[in-house]
Amino acid sequence: MSESTVENTKLVITLSCPDQPGIVHAVTGVIGSVNGNIIQSQQFGDPDSGLFFMRIEVDSPVGRGPVEEGLAKVAKTFDATWHIDALGRRLRTVIMVSREGHCLTDLLYRQRSQGLPIEVVAVVGNHPDLAPVAQFYGVPFLNIPVTKETKADAERELLNLVRSEKVELVVLARYMQILSEKVCEEMQGRVINIHHSFLPSFKGARPYAQAHDRGVKLIGATAHYVTADLDEGPIIEQDVTRVTHADSTPDMVALGQDVERRVLAQAVRWHVERRVLMDGTRTVVFSR
Amino acid sequence: MSESTVENTKLVITLSCPDQPGIVHAVTGVIGSVNGNIIQSQQFGDPDSGLFFMRIEVDSPVGRGPVEEGLAKVAKTFDATWHIDALGRRLRTVIMVSREGHCLTDLLYRQRSQGLPIEVVAVVGNHPDLAPVAQFYGVPFLNIPVTKETKADAERELLNLVRSEKVELVVLARYMQILSEKVCEEMQGRVINIHHSFLPSFKGARPYAQAHDRGVKLIGATAHYVTADLDEGPIIEQDVTRVTHADSTPDMVALGQDVERRVLAQAVRWHVERRVLMDGTRTVVFSR
Amino acid sequence: MSESTVENTKLVITLSCPDQPGIVHAVTGVIGSVNGNIIQSQQFGDPDSGLFFMRIEVDSPVGRGPVEEGLAKVAKTFDATWHIDALGRRLRTVIMVSREGHCLTDLLYRQRSQGLPIEVVAVVGNHPDLAPVAQFYGVPFLNIPVTKETKADAERELLNLVRSEKVELVVLARYMQILSEKVCEEMQGRVINIHHSFLPSFKGARPYAQAHDRGVKLIGATAHYVTADLDEGPIIEQDVTRVTHADSTPDMVALGQDVERRVLAQAVRWHVERRVLMDGTRTVVFSR
Amino acid sequence: MSESTVENTKLVITLSCPDQPGIVHAVTGVIGSVNGNIIQSQQFGDPDSGLFFMRIEVDSPVGRGPVEEGLAKVAKTFDATWHIDALGRRLRTVIMVSREGHCLTDLLYRQRSQGLPIEVVAVVGNHPDLAPVAQFYGVPFLNIPVTKETKADAERELLNLVRSEKVELVVLARYMQILSEKVCEEMQGRVINIHHSFLPSFKGARPYAQAHDRGVKLIGATAHYVTADLDEGPIIEQDVTRVTHADSTPDMVALGQDVERRVLAQAVRWHVERRVLMDGTRTVVFSR
Repeated sequence: MSESTVENTKLVITLSCPDQPGIVHAVTGVIGSVNGNIIQSQQFGDPDSGLFFMRIEVDSPVGRGPVEEGLAKVAKTFDATWHIDALGRRLRTVIMVSREGHCLTDLLYRQRSQGLPIEVVAVVGNHPDLAPVAQFYGVPFLNIPVTKETKADAERELLNLVRSEKVELVVLARYMQILSEKVCEEMQGRVINIHHSFLPSFKGARPYAQAHDRGVKLIGATAHYVTADLDEGPIIEQDVTRVTHADSTPDMVALGQDVERRVLAQAVRWHVERRVLMDGTRTVVFSR
Repeated sequence: MSESTVENTKLVITLSCPDQPGIVHAVTGVIGSVNGNIIQSQQFGDPDSGLFFMRIEVDSPVGRGPVEEGLAKVAKTFDATWHIDALGRRLRTVIMVSREGHCLTDLLYRQRSQGLPIEVVAVVGNHPDLAPVAQFYGVPFLNIPVTKETKADAERELLNLVRSEKVELVVLARYMQILSEKVCEEMQGRVINIHHSFLPSFKGARPYAQAHDRGVKLIGATAHYVTADLDEGPIIEQDVTRVTHADSTPDMVALGQDVERRVLAQAVRWHVERRVLMDGTRTVVFSR
Repeated sequence: MSESTVENTKLVITLSCPDQPGIVHAVTGVIGSVNGNIIQSQQFGDPDSGLFFMRIEVDSPVGRGPVEEGLAKVAKTFDATWHIDALGRRLRTVIMVSREGHCLTDLLYRQRSQGLPIEVVAVVGNHPDLAPVAQFYGVPFLNIPVTKETKADAERELLNLVRSEKVELVVLARYMQILSEKVCEEMQGRVINIHHSFLPSFKGARPYAQAHDRGVKLIGATAHYVTADLDEGPIIEQDVTRVTHADSTPDMVALGQDVERRVLAQAVRWHVERRVLMDGTRTVVFSR
Repeated sequence: MSESTVENTKLVITLSCPDQPGIVHAVTGVIGSVNGNIIQSQQFGDPDSGLFFMRIEVDSPVGRGPVEEGLAKVAKTFDATWHIDALGRRLRTVIMVSREGHCLTDLLYRQRSQGLPIEVVAVVGNHPDLAPVAQFYGVPFLNIPVTKETKADAERELLNLVRSEKVELVVLARYMQILSEKVCEEMQGRVINIHHSFLPSFKGARPYAQAHDRGVKLIGATAHYVTADLDEGPIIEQDVTRVTHADSTPDMVALGQDVERRVLAQAVRWHVERRVLMDGTRTVVFSR
């Protein structure tokens, strides 16, 4: 996906700003001025937050530069947060894991064989168990153990990796450590976690055991952006699966893993396709 | 469904007791002794509670009496809680409502046209709004208003109705009053409530507003037996539906009503078909 | 929803045309020229058909007239099929039924209590059975029996009703008669049918019996626009529910009715909210 | 799971026979005679086929031998097809593949990390592409190319493998070749295929392209036993996922792969747990 050429380039543009008349017209004016063609687009005004959200896939015959320049002016006028990128560009991603490999295996498989647009720079594990999986998919594995004493060092190592490798996205794929407030803030909006319950049910530890004790008939998983406030970050995607009285806690763990990997992969895909926009503590998801 | 004849009679038997060898053999021995035929059956031993659960649909060529006698002996031996009934017998039911009619309309429709085996003795409303619905379906409507001052009287009236009309099941079909501990205890295992959230998420009031604020991507409903501990009763059935950022709280209310009526109708059907057995604070549901 | 006033008016605009650059800009230009504000919008270009589709909800401070004029010009330029309407306006609707009342009851309930924006001009039944349901909801019921001999007359009566009452939508809510080619053509895109199978499986008669014989594990329903080609019209919505070996054909009928009414109501809602656009033999559905 | 010891052994028993009174009592009599304890059990009488089906998990304090002997006699009396096995024993399995690895990767992951009780004797591919996946999971890979000329040889090689390795189950994990009638018959009830559509919709080749053309709103997958009658074998499990107008055929392929692997894994699990019993051209599935 060459961006330097002035040949046809497919771009994805996202934009959010205080709601007011004229936004879409101004943005499409920029696109029109370069004779660009809209492939797909969605807009939404949130009456609660008073914010307007927009995502456009556009085919530009003059490349990215002129579109970017035009948008910069529009964004300034409307006081907008915005982003432009080559459509389908692979985001530089770090996947963090502990011992359970179902989410990691799934993400790496989808990345290699199903077009999930991430470029996995490294897999980071606080345990070494999943190194062979990374190796099989040709991805570097870094073992960064975390203890109470080494936690600060470990996080520094992670942030260094993020900076040196220009990491754009960190996926916590059942990483069983809590990131410090500092990391959460520095990486805000760029760290996705999968929690193994249907939040806000069963926050904290051992959600499947909690679910079993309560006797629920569905269990779920939640992918959300990580914030300093644990299990309270903006939700990107959730799903559930049915369980019965005959399912023990370990049965639920196994059933839940299917939901976890599906929900996490969906959230990652939507994030990298620029379909997820932040609306305070909630998200706008322009799904297909 | 004549029970007095000694012609072929279809029966449904449920039984639970401390788990031990020989229970099924003893029960099927009774059935065999009358040359009965098992139509469908399920058994489950819960390793957590140490209890064994059983449900049998049986075709008895000698009617109900001899089966009941035999089972009484078996139950005594195994210290079992048990129940025998004509398969498909309509349970005498009271439906309690406030102002929203979606669950009431649905239950009455299913009762009349889709074979939901309940005989609705009365609809009780703390508001008069839904009287026409009851009338349309030919069911008596009792308006029993509830204020802080009249609550005790109102509950007495309800219990009198339950006793005089031999009511076997009370369904709270979006009844917006909390039953007193006394009623909960007297009616234990015979009152089903629909809560308009995926419990244990969003207990208490205005769950859809809570769900909207939290930005969840699925909303749900929970049918449970009513206990003195509000929103903590044994769960019978739950389901969810997808929502998006574009759904306001009123949108969620409308979408949720579909889930509520479906979940409540399913729970009521399973209860009256004797598919739900109590296992402490949880339920065993022998679904089809 | 007054359309004559020049006070703020919410409008819904749909438009489809051969894909080319500038469409969105031209449409939003019209909106901008009247200082209108976009509430929600979606656009989609279908690479297969080469058509572009657009739906906009807009808040217009100058009412409908100036927007309509501006759009008419744009539509001419782009050779577009388009529609403008007051957002939320109730479509004048006829519901056609035979003997089964689950879909009718559901639609009428939703129309009265859940904001389904249809104005039911009449219920037409080829059998008189469901007259009381229409009456309960205060809707005229017309019994138009159909035999081989009277079919032509019956259809003439229907078309007369459509014309005299300015009917915009006909919903076949388990209407067990096949409309003639003539009616299908005259009413094209304005007749929605619910088929009681997951099309293209089990076309034709007795789909649940077919499903039972084949031993499928899910049964479904399909809402589609009616065309002269039976069961082949553009699909608007489909859904399924799980069945087991223990479900007989009558059980499947009962379970399926839940899916049928849900799918039909969803399709009707999307149609009247102008979310469904025709794309050859397929539909573009701009769901929420 | 030692079967030779007379220590406590968990067994799974399945049995089907013409329906008649006394079957359950006779079977539980055998269990009772060895002081065995029923963990879980389900029975079902099919009124259509006149057959009775039973599955029991039992804890036997005297091992397997005496139970087996007792059952053999019962089975003879009732003219029953029956099976007894150690509960949880891993079935000797061959997985057959072509080029797409999603189902293979999933089955091998589940087998290693999620307790799917299969022992994969070999992966057989008509293309060599997936050899590295097998290797990663420590499973032998056999490349058996198939052309019109070599088909007979290839099948002979497969049957030899099945015999020499005592293969109990063959899973066609997106194997793009049709087995000959001979193999289908020899392996009847032991070959599970995943078809990438919601059967009976879209039989044959390119089901996703067919689905896209028809404009369906859900796509699905079907796991079934292979019979000589292509795509007509008894269905074990099906599921669907939602698609929209914006999903191209390749998008549907990617979305469908998720459903395929989930449905296939579920079917394999149920088969190896002896939860699937054949009922003519349909299956009885005693799911949890």
